[in-house]
Amino acid sequence: MSDIIRTTDALVIHDREDLRLDRVPVAAPGRGEVTVRVAWGGICGSDMHYLKHGGVGASVLRAPMILGHEISGFVEAAGPGVHGLAPGEAVAVHPARPCGECPECRRGLRHLCRETRFLGSAAMLPHTDGGFRRLMTVAASQVYPLPPGLDVRAACLAEPLSVALHAIIRAGDVRGRSVLVQGAGPIGALIVAGLKIAGAGEIVATDLQDFPLSIARRMGATTTVNTASAPHVAEHDIVFEVSGAAGALPTAIGCTAKGGVLVQVGMFPPGDVGIPLGQIIARELDYRGSFRFDTEFGTALDLLAAYPWIAEGLVTHRFPLAAFGEAFTASLDRRHSSKVLFDIGG
Amino acid sequence: MSDIIRTTDALVIHDREDLRLDRVPVAAPGRGEVTVRVAWGGICGSDMHYLKHGGVGASVLRAPMILGHEISGFVEAAGPGVHGLAPGEAVAVHPARPCGECPECRRGLRHLCRETRFLGSAAMLPHTDGGFRRLMTVAASQVYPLPPGLDVRAACLAEPLSVALHAIIRAGDVRGRSVLVQGAGPIGALIVAGLKIAGAGEIVATDLQDFPLSIARRMGATTTVNTASAPHVAEHDIVFEVSGAAGALPTAIGCTAKGGVLVQVGMFPPGDVGIPLGQIIARELDYRGSFRFDTEFGTALDLLAAYPWIAEGLVTHRFPLAAFGEAFTASLDRRHSSKVLFDIGG
Amino acid sequence: MSDIIRTTDALVIHDREDLRLDRVPVAAPGRGEVTVRVAWGGICGSDMHYLKHGGVGASVLRAPMILGHEISGFVEAAGPGVHGLAPGEAVAVHPARPCGECPECRRGLRHLCRETRFLGSAAMLPHTDGGFRRLMTVAASQVYPLPPGLDVRAACLAEPLSVALHAIIRAGDVRGRSVLVQGAGPIGALIVAGLKIAGAGEIVATDLQDFPLSIARRMGATTTVNTASAPHVAEHDIVFEVSGAAGALPTAIGCTAKGGVLVQVGMFPPGDVGIPLGQIIARELDYRGSFRFDTEFGTALDLLAAYPWIAEGLVTHRFPLAAFGEAFTASLDRRHSSKVLFDIGG
Amino acid sequence: MSDIIRTTDALVIHDREDLRLDRVPVAAPGRGEVTVRVAWGGICGSDMHYLKHGGVGASVLRAPMILGHEISGFVEAAGPGVHGLAPGEAVAVHPARPCGECPECRRGLRHLCRETRFLGSAAMLPHTDGGFRRLMTVAASQVYPLPPGLDVRAACLAEPLSVALHAIIRAGDVRGRSVLVQGAGPIGALIVAGLKIAGAGEIVATDLQDFPLSIARRMGATTTVNTASAPHVAEHDIVFEVSGAAGALPTAIGCTAKGGVLVQVGMFPPGDVGIPLGQIIARELDYRGSFRFDTEFGTALDLLAAYPWIAEGLVTHRFPLAAFGEAFTASLDRRHSSKVLFDIGG
Repeated sequence: MSDIIRTTDALVIHDREDLRLDRVPVAAPGRGEVTVRVAWGGICGSDMHYLKHGGVGASVLRAPMILGHEISGFVEAAGPGVHGLAPGEAVAVHPARPCGECPECRRGLRHLCRETRFLGSAAMLPHTDGGFRRLMTVAASQVYPLPPGLDVRAACLAEPLSVALHAIIRAGDVRGRSVLVQGAGPIGALIVAGLKIAGAGEIVATDLQDFPLSIARRMGATTTVNTASAPHVAEHDIVFEVSGAAGALPTAIGCTAKGGVLVQVGMFPPGDVGIPLGQIIARELDYRGSFRFDTEFGTALDLLAAYPWIAEGLVTHRFPLAAFGEAFTASLDRRHSSKVLFDIGG
Repeated sequence: MSDIIRTTDALVIHDREDLRLDRVPVAAPGRGEVTVRVAWGGICGSDMHYLKHGGVGASVLRAPMILGHEISGFVEAAGPGVHGLAPGEAVAVHPARPCGECPECRRGLRHLCRETRFLGSAAMLPHTDGGFRRLMTVAASQVYPLPPGLDVRAACLAEPLSVALHAIIRAGDVRGRSVLVQGAGPIGALIVAGLKIAGAGEIVATDLQDFPLSIARRMGATTTVNTASAPHVAEHDIVFEVSGAAGALPTAIGCTAKGGVLVQVGMFPPGDVGIPLGQIIARELDYRGSFRFDTEFGTALDLLAAYPWIAEGLVTHRFPLAAFGEAFTASLDRRHSSKVLFDIGG
Repeated sequence: MSDIIRTTDALVIHDREDLRLDRVPVAAPGRGEVTVRVAWGGICGSDMHYLKHGGVGASVLRAPMILGHEISGFVEAAGPGVHGLAPGEAVAVHPARPCGECPECRRGLRHLCRETRFLGSAAMLPHTDGGFRRLMTVAASQVYPLPPGLDVRAACLAEPLSVALHAIIRAGDVRGRSVLVQGAGPIGALIVAGLKIAGAGEIVATDLQDFPLSIARRMGATTTVNTASAPHVAEHDIVFEVSGAAGALPTAIGCTAKGGVLVQVGMFPPGDVGIPLGQIIARELDYRGSFRFDTEFGTALDLLAAYPWIAEGLVTHRFPLAAFGEAFTASLDRRHSSKVLFDIGG
Repeated sequence: MSDIIRTTDALVIHDREDLRLDRVPVAAPGRGEVTVRVAWGGICGSDMHYLKHGGVGASVLRAPMILGHEISGFVEAAGPGVHGLAPGEAVAVHPARPCGECPECRRGLRHLCRETRFLGSAAMLPHTDGGFRRLMTVAASQVYPLPPGLDVRAACLAEPLSVALHAIIRAGDVRGRSVLVQGAGPIGALIVAGLKIAGAGEIVATDLQDFPLSIARRMGATTTVNTASAPHVAEHDIVFEVSGAAGALPTAIGCTAKGGVLVQVGMFPPGDVGIPLGQIIARELDYRGSFRFDTEFGTALDLLAAYPWIAEGLVTHRFPLAAFGEAFTASLDRRHSSKVLFDIGG
């Protein structure tokens, strides 16, 4: 496509508390690849973990890495063998590229691929650079044209909404069911939105802060409860534990009705957590982990197009890439922010 | 049907360690009811709990109660409104009679009915008398004619096999999958048999005793491991935790592959159990409780008819009702027994 | 409860085109039974079939029968052994009482019970009288208290909404999917409403009349198409065939996308219907019949309470029981009516 | 890998009734590709369609094409970026390479990919050459190492067994259920084997010839019925229509029990087929098409390793590639053959 070496601005994490706006090269798109001119990027909780701790879970930084996996933009150029992605087309970028050959991929569990390349993740060596940059080259299979009526800004929410949809799919049929969502940050709020759209009945959201609860109400929560002073005590058909807070799990189990489902979305700190195991059997609960997503990405784009109030209600702040310090500070302050975006194309 | 007062022998638990062969009245079959001449009854782990502790889990004896919920026999007499159950017909008795009106029943979770009447259970007041007696009157909906070729002795295994099938159904599709069964008592062994029939691939059974493992091999285990000296370390698509032993759960979680399912069948002692929660999410596990069964009972009868080696391989001892002391002693000795039956009709 | 013989008004079908308001006895509530003071009753297409043809499908009138199976009202009196249903409580009546003993019931397919007693149905002998009368006595298991906020008038829609929900459940996950509903009468319109609530994406409704399409738009259809002049040609993930019109099935198959689901709700006339079978395989379609419902009834009540626009938008006419002639005439005129109710308690 | 031009023998279909053993070039393995030394290849019904009609269904020959999609062999060489496939390793070849970018792939329906490359299929232009040749180069994602204990000859049955497993998965849970398989050719026989392994109860196979029924008995059929003289009349929970014979479908529908599932595997001739539609609703049937497979391939290999009687019982003839005329003649004669293999490596 191009043999001139191009470079672009990128937000690179070098070590804990060491985030820099660097100049990095842009790969020309090879066969089956596309170069995307990034327009918008959303900050995720895991980006904040890299910034504060130099890693997240078992993924520890061993080299500098570009952050960012909630990405939308426009096709800049397409390599040979790519069909249906013309320059200028608005797109969202699926952050995962599973290997297709490991046992998980061959069993259809592509989101659990043991060698997946996930944008802005240090799980593998070399690390996989993310999308907080002006130009990025990715596989065409990761590049999704936007459905009619979807704004490119809203499209960068397809990633966290896919996480929420995957968690909802893990819960099974939610129609008319009473649901509790513990923790009302961006993922919890998007789970509330997804539940609303999917026809859940009562949707109760709990949090220790008032601001996230106000967002949850915008997303369709029928009741919100600040549990800083007193716990929520009621039975629900389905419970999502999104807080990852110590002590939240026994509450979550106690709030799950007989034959109900408890989906674990929030990451707890390492180590054992005590659970009242007898209840798992006597009330026949399903306790299900939820990890990322796979084919939910296309559905997420369709829902963002059909329900514009999701993006309007969730996004509280926007910053240029150069103001990354303010952006992360805003994102960390749960009392005043929900989803914070980088306006990369502006 | 009859207005003459009849009495019959019955094995009654009066208090912990106080089991007696009493003479009890037999109710005439009312509308929709059937009197069964009991032929065989199997001893279950919960019967042993009543004997040793005066209760099991939250079900505590408050009055004398006839034990026994693994029952087969012959129709003695049918009340008005009963069709298709002629005197002399060989039958098995489904131990549960759900209320049909509570929220769980109305949602189709009849095995979780909050007012179910379960034979030989002290969960409700008045307690529900069980089937270790010569004559018993139950609802016709609980009385299942045997499929062609099924011996009435083998038929009393339909109850524990239903427990095993329910656990397997909770696990989802097992075909060709690698499975671990922790604990090879009668329920664990029947899970092995059900897995074999259902086309599971590798079936590994573990236990702390050699004799239960020999039964598991008869039921189709491809590998058995005595974990008294060293733990079993390997990954399996599906794991059944049937032992209820302290410390077994972290092992079970560690042995469950990415995207795998862990079914909890064995009852742990009350209180919290520590689990490595991060693995539930990062490897996206399903941790599912399994409690009793509902419509599996008919399938269990069909399988016992089709696979006579199940009953032949599992039953190790038979005693007349009067020898109840020896029967329970045999049942408690896992080094030499698996399923112990009462020959009630003999 | 009462040994005085009571009588009540009832709408009795004696033969085709022979419908009368008769005086019939009211049974006192026996054990486990409840007498309901009926307040509202909805007219269904099958009621119209009995009036016009003296039967519906294989159910042919052999004796006079009270019509009506979409019923709500108030508890008048409860027989012995009934808990939680106090006189005066507002309730809806589930029309089906499965036998609990046939092979279908024992496999959990209670809506397909071969001996079910369904209100106002001539499928069995003696026929099962329906609920178009002022007082009726039914099993307590059929009597559902209304959830908070649900008006007793709207509650009589729980029956047709259950039919719609069952059809939607037959379709599987509808979230974000493109759906076509062929036929926009009351059942088609309620399917549209259920789809909207369940988070379907595009919902296209087609009909040969404009008025039903206007109702479908109220229920949430994103597009409506009058196919009197030209067929609808597009691919949808899920298609509901509700019209029962000759020639509609090949259209429905042609509109179902690869791997999609086609749910057959509308009853076609007897005899063979030609279908392009090659498409069923090459595009791997699921063609699924949908028949009545079971546990959906409780969910239907919850949804009617949560979404009052369903009842407000669907009901177009109300008549006293004595004006049954006008009521059926209105119900037959699809150009001006959707759901027609009897105000029985007024 | 190699820049010397290599050639190999290949069985090429030029037109109907024009099959030749040609000399064709072998592509060197590029990045992510593997060259396989083919050992065994099975003849499928679709290969016979190409020979007799110059096409199958909508796939019509427009250029010469190498036949064969049931292939096993040994790794000859691996291109750059390929891990875990060392020269000499025994492998089976998954015939499909879905595009990963079309709507079906993005929804997880990879077996319905509209641009899939399927070995030996004329569905696309240029046609995709198959595996009846000594050397072939394919994507590494299509190359599956054999599980321990699986012979390379048996491994070429993984493809038709995957078709059978996919059909069984389409049917849902088969444990203890009564099943009818209409048509006992290789696919029907493998469905019988899969059902046996999966724990189906009664398995009835029907055919118009005795020889295929003898194979079905080897595969585990509990009853076989030659329907040349009289139809089979009985109800089964699950029915597989594999014959593709005119008039077989109404029989299949009539044999499906209430709430049952009918899976369509056999391809009917083009055009409409009349079906008794009323039964689809009144008995709430599921009529499901089944098309090829995706992740079933790995399970198929595991099952062939665990159950060697499958391959031993199904394979009736073997021929060298040069004897292709005799091989196809044998394969067409259902009175004396079931699965016919090419011994390509011998």
